[in-house]
Amino acid sequence: MSARMEVEVVTRREELRPEALRGRAAVVIDTLRATTSIATALAAGAAWVLPVDSEEAARAAAARLRDPLGEAPLLAGERDRVRIPGFDLGNSPAEFAPGRVRGRGIVLCTTNGSRALHAAAPCAERLYCAALVNAGAVAAELGRTGAERLTLVCSGSGGHFSVEDFLTAGCLIERLGAADGLEDPRGEALRLDDAALAAWLAWRSGRERLRSIVEPGRAARALARVGLEADVEEALRLDALDVVPVLRDGRLVALR
Amino acid sequence: MSARMEVEVVTRREELRPEALRGRAAVVIDTLRATTSIATALAAGAAWVLPVDSEEAARAAAARLRDPLGEAPLLAGERDRVRIPGFDLGNSPAEFAPGRVRGRGIVLCTTNGSRALHAAAPCAERLYCAALVNAGAVAAELGRTGAERLTLVCSGSGGHFSVEDFLTAGCLIERLGAADGLEDPRGEALRLDDAALAAWLAWRSGRERLRSIVEPGRAARALARVGLEADVEEALRLDALDVVPVLRDGRLVALR
Repeated sequence: MSARMEVEVVTRREELRPEALRGRAAVVIDTLRATTSIATALAAGAAWVLPVDSEEAARAAAARLRDPLGEAPLLAGERDRVRIPGFDLGNSPAEFAPGRVRGRGIVLCTTNGSRALHAAAPCAERLYCAALVNAGAVAAELGRTGAERLTLVCSGSGGHFSVEDFLTAGCLIERLGAADGLEDPRGEALRLDDAALAAWLAWRSGRERLRSIVEPGRAARALARVGLEADVEEALRLDALDVVPVLRDGRLVALR
Repeated sequence: MSARMEVEVVTRREELRPEALRGRAAVVIDTLRATTSIATALAAGAAWVLPVDSEEAARAAAARLRDPLGEAPLLAGERDRVRIPGFDLGNSPAEFAPGRVRGRGIVLCTTNGSRALHAAAPCAERLYCAALVNAGAVAAELGRTGAERLTLVCSGSGGHFSVEDFLTAGCLIERLGAADGLEDPRGEALRLDDAALAAWLAWRSGRERLRSIVEPGRAARALARVGLEADVEEALRLDALDVVPVLRDGRLVALR
C-alpha cells in the first residue's frame, strides 16, 4: 500500500447512499450470513453469485440465466431467516458445499446482505464482499490494489446495528493497518472516519472473545431461535477462507 | 442496581425515534459540545438550561421567560460552531463560568445536542445529559435509580457518527457494569443491544488514549478550524464534574 488510504464505515445498510460510492472501492459486510455464505460458495468452486433484492427478481434471473454448466442457476436465499419456499438453498454457509455448488451459478436473495450488495453494485468503482471467514484475504487484496478511498458497508440486521458486522469492519481495518506495521490506524497510511475508528477500537477489544460477543447479539439469537446456531459457528471461523469475492459484470466471482 | 438493566445505544440523533423512548430513561450525549457545556453550566450554578431546536424558538423563549434572578435568561448557542449573532454566549464549555451563569437561566440552541434533547424531552420517562466530564456522576445516578430500560442517544455531528459520543456511551456502560463488579456487561446485571456492546468494546480500547482518538475526529477537527481547540481539552476532562443534568418541566436542572 503506497498512497494514504481513506476509510469510512457505514454502520447499517439503511444509511448507505449508493451515489456516494462513486469513485470508491466498497466492501459489503453481512457476517450473519450473506457474505459468509458468498465467500463459502466461491471458495467451494461456485462460478458466480448474483445478488438480488427480491424473490421475484431471483426467480426471473434464474429463468433467464444459464451457468457455465449450461444449467439454470441455483436459487438461494432466506425470508425471516429460513429458506424461501421452492428455492434450492437457504442462506446457511454449510449449504454451499463443493458437491452442491462447484461450477454452478447462484442467485442469492437475502434480507440484508444481498440488498446492500444490490444497492452498492451500480455505483462503487470496485465492490468486494467480506466476512470474518475471509477478512484477511480481502484486506490483503485491498492493500495490494492500494485503493485510495474505501467504504466498508455494514449491512446490519433489519434496520439495526449488528455487532458482528462492525467487528468485521474493524478487523479489515486492523489488517489494512497491520500491512504497514502500524500500531494506530490514525497514523500515516490510513485515514479513518469516526465510525471506522470506533470499529477498529471495538475489534481490538473484541477479537479475543468473538464468540462471547457475537452469540448474544441480535442476529445470532434470531438464528438460534430457528435452530441455526451452527451458522454462527461457521461465521466465526476467522480467516478460514482464502477467497476474495469481487463484482464483475454484476456478479460476484472469486478473484484469481 | 437491583433489577437487570436493558441498555440500547442510538448512534446518531437522526436514528432516534422519540416515541420509542416512552417508558424508558434516556441519556443524551453530545460530548463536543452541548452536553459538556450543559454539565459545565449547571456545575457552575446555573439555575436551568432550556434546550431548543431553532434560533427563533430561543429568542421567543428568552423574551417570555424570567430566571430566578428575575432577569431574562441568557441566550446561548452556535451556528456552524460559532456564537449566534446577538446571543450572550456561544457553546464553549469555558464560557459557562460561575461568574457568568450562577443563578441564571440559559436558553441553548445548538446544531446537534440541543435538538436531540428537544426531540427526546416529550417522550422519555426520565431524561439526563452526559458527556465525558460527568459520565461517572450520571452512571452512579442511573445505578441508584435502577432504571430497567435505558437508551443512550449519541447526537453525532451533522448526520455523521461521532466517535467521542460513542466512547462516552461506552464509558457510561462500563461504569454501570462496574457498579456491580462486572467484567463483561453481557453478564447478569446489564443486557446490551449490539450498538451498546460495540460502544463498550470501543471504550475499553480507547479509554487510555482519548486525546489521540478524539482530536483527529470530525467534530474536533471542525472546532480546530475555527480556533476552538480549547473546547476539546475541556470536553476530555473525564469525570471532572459531579453533576447530573436532569429534565424537570422541560428544563435541565442539576439533580440535588
